[in-house]
Amino acid sequence: MTTNPTEPDDAFHVFDTTLRDGAQREGINLTVADKLSIARYLDEFGVGFIEGGWPGANPRDTEFFARASQEIDFRHAQLVAFGSTRRAGAKAAQDPQVKGLVESGAPVVTVVAKSHDRHVELALRTTLEENLEMIRDTVSYLREQGRRVFVDCEHFFDGYRANPQYALTVVRTAAGAGADVVVLCDTNGGMLPAQVLDVVSAVRRETGARLGIHAQDDSGCAVANTLAAVDGGATHVQCTANGYGERVGNCNLFPVVAALELKYDRRVLPAGALAEMTRISHAVAEVVNLAPSTHQPYVGVSAFAHKGGLHASAIKVDPDLYQHIDPAVVGNTMRMLVSDMAGRASVELKGKELGFDLSADRDLVGRVVARVKERELQGYSYEAADASFELMLRAEVEGSAPSYFRTESWRAIVEDRPDGSHANEATVKLWAKGERIVATGEGNGPVNALDLALRAGLERIYPQLTSFQLTDYKVRILEGRHGTESTTRVLITTSDGGAEWSTVGVGENVIAASWYALADAYTYGLLRAGVEPADG
Amino acid sequence: MTTNPTEPDDAFHVFDTTLRDGAQREGINLTVADKLSIARYLDEFGVGFIEGGWPGANPRDTEFFARASQEIDFRHAQLVAFGSTRRAGAKAAQDPQVKGLVESGAPVVTVVAKSHDRHVELALRTTLEENLEMIRDTVSYLREQGRRVFVDCEHFFDGYRANPQYALTVVRTAAGAGADVVVLCDTNGGMLPAQVLDVVSAVRRETGARLGIHAQDDSGCAVANTLAAVDGGATHVQCTANGYGERVGNCNLFPVVAALELKYDRRVLPAGALAEMTRISHAVAEVVNLAPSTHQPYVGVSAFAHKGGLHASAIKVDPDLYQHIDPAVVGNTMRMLVSDMAGRASVELKGKELGFDLSADRDLVGRVVARVKERELQGYSYEAADASFELMLRAEVEGSAPSYFRTESWRAIVEDRPDGSHANEATVKLWAKGERIVATGEGNGPVNALDLALRAGLERIYPQLTSFQLTDYKVRILEGRHGTESTTRVLITTSDGGAEWSTVGVGENVIAASWYALADAYTYGLLRAGVEPADG
Repeated sequence: MTTNPTEPDDAFHVFDTTLRDGAQREGINLTVADKLSIARYLDEFGVGFIEGGWPGANPRDTEFFARASQEIDFRHAQLVAFGSTRRAGAKAAQDPQVKGLVESGAPVVTVVAKSHDRHVELALRTTLEENLEMIRDTVSYLREQGRRVFVDCEHFFDGYRANPQYALTVVRTAAGAGADVVVLCDTNGGMLPAQVLDVVSAVRRETGARLGIHAQDDSGCAVANTLAAVDGGATHVQCTANGYGERVGNCNLFPVVAALELKYDRRVLPAGALAEMTRISHAVAEVVNLAPSTHQPYVGVSAFAHKGGLHASAIKVDPDLYQHIDPAVVGNTMRMLVSDMAGRASVELKGKELGFDLSADRDLVGRVVARVKERELQGYSYEAADASFELMLRAEVEGSAPSYFRTESWRAIVEDRPDGSHANEATVKLWAKGERIVATGEGNGPVNALDLALRAGLERIYPQLTSFQLTDYKVRILEGRHGTESTTRVLITTSDGGAEWSTVGVGENVIAASWYALADAYTYGLLRAGVEPADG
Repeated sequence: MTTNPTEPDDAFHVFDTTLRDGAQREGINLTVADKLSIARYLDEFGVGFIEGGWPGANPRDTEFFARASQEIDFRHAQLVAFGSTRRAGAKAAQDPQVKGLVESGAPVVTVVAKSHDRHVELALRTTLEENLEMIRDTVSYLREQGRRVFVDCEHFFDGYRANPQYALTVVRTAAGAGADVVVLCDTNGGMLPAQVLDVVSAVRRETGARLGIHAQDDSGCAVANTLAAVDGGATHVQCTANGYGERVGNCNLFPVVAALELKYDRRVLPAGALAEMTRISHAVAEVVNLAPSTHQPYVGVSAFAHKGGLHASAIKVDPDLYQHIDPAVVGNTMRMLVSDMAGRASVELKGKELGFDLSADRDLVGRVVARVKERELQGYSYEAADASFELMLRAEVEGSAPSYFRTESWRAIVEDRPDGSHANEATVKLWAKGERIVATGEGNGPVNALDLALRAGLERIYPQLTSFQLTDYKVRILEGRHGTESTTRVLITTSDGGAEWSTVGVGENVIAASWYALADAYTYGLLRAGVEPADG
């Protein structure tokens, strides 16, 4: 129970398992750095619990727990370690897997337990009684170690259908041993809302235990199943950002919290968090390197995009006639598809955001819109590259883009030597303040080599460059069906120790694209530093 | 009512509106040819009704209706024309829009009508009574013309909330004028299943009319809302293939019919149709030129893909332990993904999938698991690279990986010339069949150049290479927080015209990583082609 009035209290749990169950999604492969940055986004969004993984099960998760508590100053969320009940016939106190959970240092532990008799016998290969003992022993041991314990009842709904008495006994056993929440899992995702409502209500009535819901989306009903469980008395919902997860996926966090806050009028997030939802959703997608789903409810770029003629005319009268909510409430925006992605309004708003009042000059806005459309056709995307957008905007506003150097030519060489070692060397030929500069760099890759050559050439003239550091580098291949002949988009984030800015480059190959993004990055950085533009 | 026993009867309607409402999806732009081929797929799937568009509203839809009845020999579906009630103050018999519906020749007509008082006044700008008259007049006129009529009550649920009496009057008016089905539309998609169940049950009770449901997915509950309406007494469901539609989209046809057939035991499709669902879903996606959603329930390529170690070990015992249905029932297949979250079981299953029985040799499986974990720690990911996994597996099983050439060295040069043009040149030095080969290639990027150099060097010795083509190329930067000093993972998909295979390479830069993936791609391709491995 927090004392901060802007925080939801413990009466309802928003529990995120993106880093554990979400990571099971095909195509997702998270590094420790990825997990740390997703944890930061989830904490910023204000979920109450972040299940970080299974410490001890693989080195990555162990390292994540060690670093997360050190490196992240959680403002809202508590870190949760996931593990299973102890081995059959052992003692929890001696079970290395259980020990790993305690050693993770996480204040909360989720223990997965079998609740379907068939799974106990076929998968766990033990007796129904021993399974109960495993739950009792594991939960009490973790409680003795001062941990808060939630129990995930795997295959609960199938199990309840097959053997309701045993399923109920599992819930009573977990609660009796000290589990704060017993989570009913639709592990195979086959349930429909009406069934979930019936079962959750019955279990509440029969056991009086505090219940949670963990829904998979195999029937396309995970969001509805989660809400049905809440209708049935569950006060703990387990979800993942963007619905990432095994097979079809887990219950999507975003439509669930949006429904609870906007349609149930229930405060489940800190004040103001909902308005960050679209940004957080897209940021997490970037980290896992999946394109954000354009048609995701609430947060998709198309979620409030209107195309129908009927709609268009009605929306002119009153936008709410064809929207279930105001998009701004979830940080999204309405788009009319008669115009294109980059409408005049969004450019004006963007300009304002960057300190340019464009409302006066309709022609200028028109030129910028045309330019954005032309660049986006080439593969540019300014959504995540404000710095490049500002440089492009200034070129239109001020007649020419600020410039600090002119490129004559550059060359990058990557060599795989007979001894297996690699050499990466780059040469740049530049003009700055009327001076011709030739510089070379050696790096661990061609882009790194180009980066170092560029710095070597310019740092004497622009010492500010020494404080610049590349903090993020992303590559996306466009039109991937053309194999290695695709165009490439590179996004670079640069920091001067304090601020960070992002730039984009597009080219027919990754090196050329990186060069354009690098050039923008240094140009914008020098502009930020207040350096007077100097022609090449 | 059809006499064909393998056909569902008229008691329940599967009504598809992909060609009308689905076409409103951002990014979809259907030609008449597209519409005709989608109509063929939908008829083959066995939906009862295909809403083809709004004849008269645009030339494309008019042409579609003219050609569909000529060119398509419908086996299951009836063609439906969509239009609206007549203009205020006119007569249906004189309304050109209504005439267009009759002239389309479609045996069934869906008429959209306002049922929300606010929309009648704000959008339609007429009186509540005139709106009722428009419905009465339009429906009776179309019935006189021998058409079967369904009425779509736009914004019904919002309207019922605002003014239940008026909404009910609209339903009574439509049914009274001769509409066979009155369809309650959640036009803005804001409803949740519990609300839909309440409203549909109440309207059934109050009016006795035959009801249908049209749900949009803005709350992420369209499938559940549609099923809730069926629970409430609706016997007509309007959906679109793959959930295409305005904003977030419409209710997805596939999970709805699958739930009705498999979970409600209700026959809504012709015998055998469900087993074609995955193919039909992907075929429609191809026609609208959108990549099939990999995570779509039932039909997504990942819908039955298992990654978790817990799951894999249980699946070895019995696949149904982690599947809500048998994938074959919907024409899909189960897949095992190898990842460091998985253990021995998934490696064994994967081996089996590739034709290796590893169950006998525990040490071998242990070695492979260890190798996978070690490689994944370096940044490898085998879940999307079966071919690289098989090469690695063979190296363990057969003592050494099959090899067709040995790399002495390679070099790639990327040059940005003073005239702004780019030169990309690569040289490879290889040994194959005891012969030393030096070859160069020029491409539109360094990887493309390396690819061409490799082919130039090897095609004479291995002519099979000429049929290989790179069809997909993906780059993922790992440990992205280190800027351009990150390691890089490259995934390549190669085709020989028939089969496709995927390989992975990891290196300290994108060129080196691509080289490893290319080498695996060609090695695997030659192995597939039955070429005898030859040491370098």
